[in-house]
Amino acid sequence: MDLEVIKLSIRDVPDFPSKGILFKDLTTVFKSGEQLKELTNILYEHYKGKGLTKIVGIESRGFIMGPILAEKLGIGFVPVRKKGKLPADTIEESYEKEYGIDTIQIHTDALTENDVVLLHDDLLATGGTMKAAENLVKKFNVKKIYINFLVELDFLEGRKLFGEEIEVDSIIHF
Amino acid sequence: MDLEVIKLSIRDVPDFPSKGILFKDLTTVFKSGEQLKELTNILYEHYKGKGLTKIVGIESRGFIMGPILAEKLGIGFVPVRKKGKLPADTIEESYEKEYGIDTIQIHTDALTENDVVLLHDDLLATGGTMKAAENLVKKFNVKKIYINFLVELDFLEGRKLFGEEIEVDSIIHF
Repeated sequence: MDLEVIKLSIRDVPDFPSKGILFKDLTTVFKSGEQLKELTNILYEHYKGKGLTKIVGIESRGFIMGPILAEKLGIGFVPVRKKGKLPADTIEESYEKEYGIDTIQIHTDALTENDVVLLHDDLLATGGTMKAAENLVKKFNVKKIYINFLVELDFLEGRKLFGEEIEVDSIIHF
Repeated sequence: MDLEVIKLSIRDVPDFPSKGILFKDLTTVFKSGEQLKELTNILYEHYKGKGLTKIVGIESRGFIMGPILAEKLGIGFVPVRKKGKLPADTIEESYEKEYGIDTIQIHTDALTENDVVLLHDDLLATGGTMKAAENLVKKFNVKKIYINFLVELDFLEGRKLFGEEIEVDSIIHF
């Protein structure tokens, strides 16, 4: 299967979540067994040689491909969630959104300094949430951080938020 | 690996999400690559012969093992989400929670009457959310519905909500 087929399967939803935004809906990709497998293979081929030890997925669309890739690589999956959702001891990071402040959390026992971490979410737009997640993971002094998105909206230039020492990869670009 | 090892890895968190509730935290299982693989194998062996065509996972803890199993089986994954989170046309179902009413949604194009569906969530407690999700899936007149949980709290008798014609399975019981 060509990546172009997956790209064409992504559904454009106008004015979601708010007026003027053209939302890229990946549920039309995930519901196809063939496309889900192909996305998985692409991710697996890209990350299999990098010595990853944990995948950190961002709630909740980052919980779909993140765990699949973790299982395929034989490594663990760690969730980053909105404040108040994780049950045990957490550390947190706040960041500005269009209308106010959001806070995300990760369990304090989720990572160690021996980990090589892939941070994963479905979409890179302005990048605020992923930047906050990267700050959270950095607090564990992990060995190395990689960042992955399924889709990147290039014109928003979200990747400028991340340092040049970090490999930021997206499978599909608009 | 013995299932008992996974059971022992589940973390008890007292008074979460509210006073008097002993929460079963599976993040301590998911963060182990070995245990994530073992859980996957158990699910795969149980469901591989059942002719499933879609896995429907409930936001957001049902998004972790649901997609892994879907990819392993070569079938699609469909999310059920809280109201307002899915971008395209949806149908919805409301249900009573301890303090008020909750509403969940599924995309109208997520399933067809040819589908054999596995509904998946991490935990069966009182079962209200899964019952609402089952009602949603039934609206598509699918061929057959299976229900799966990773953990079931037997003493809450949540499985009584589901008809005897539906196979409800949990991997771990407390």
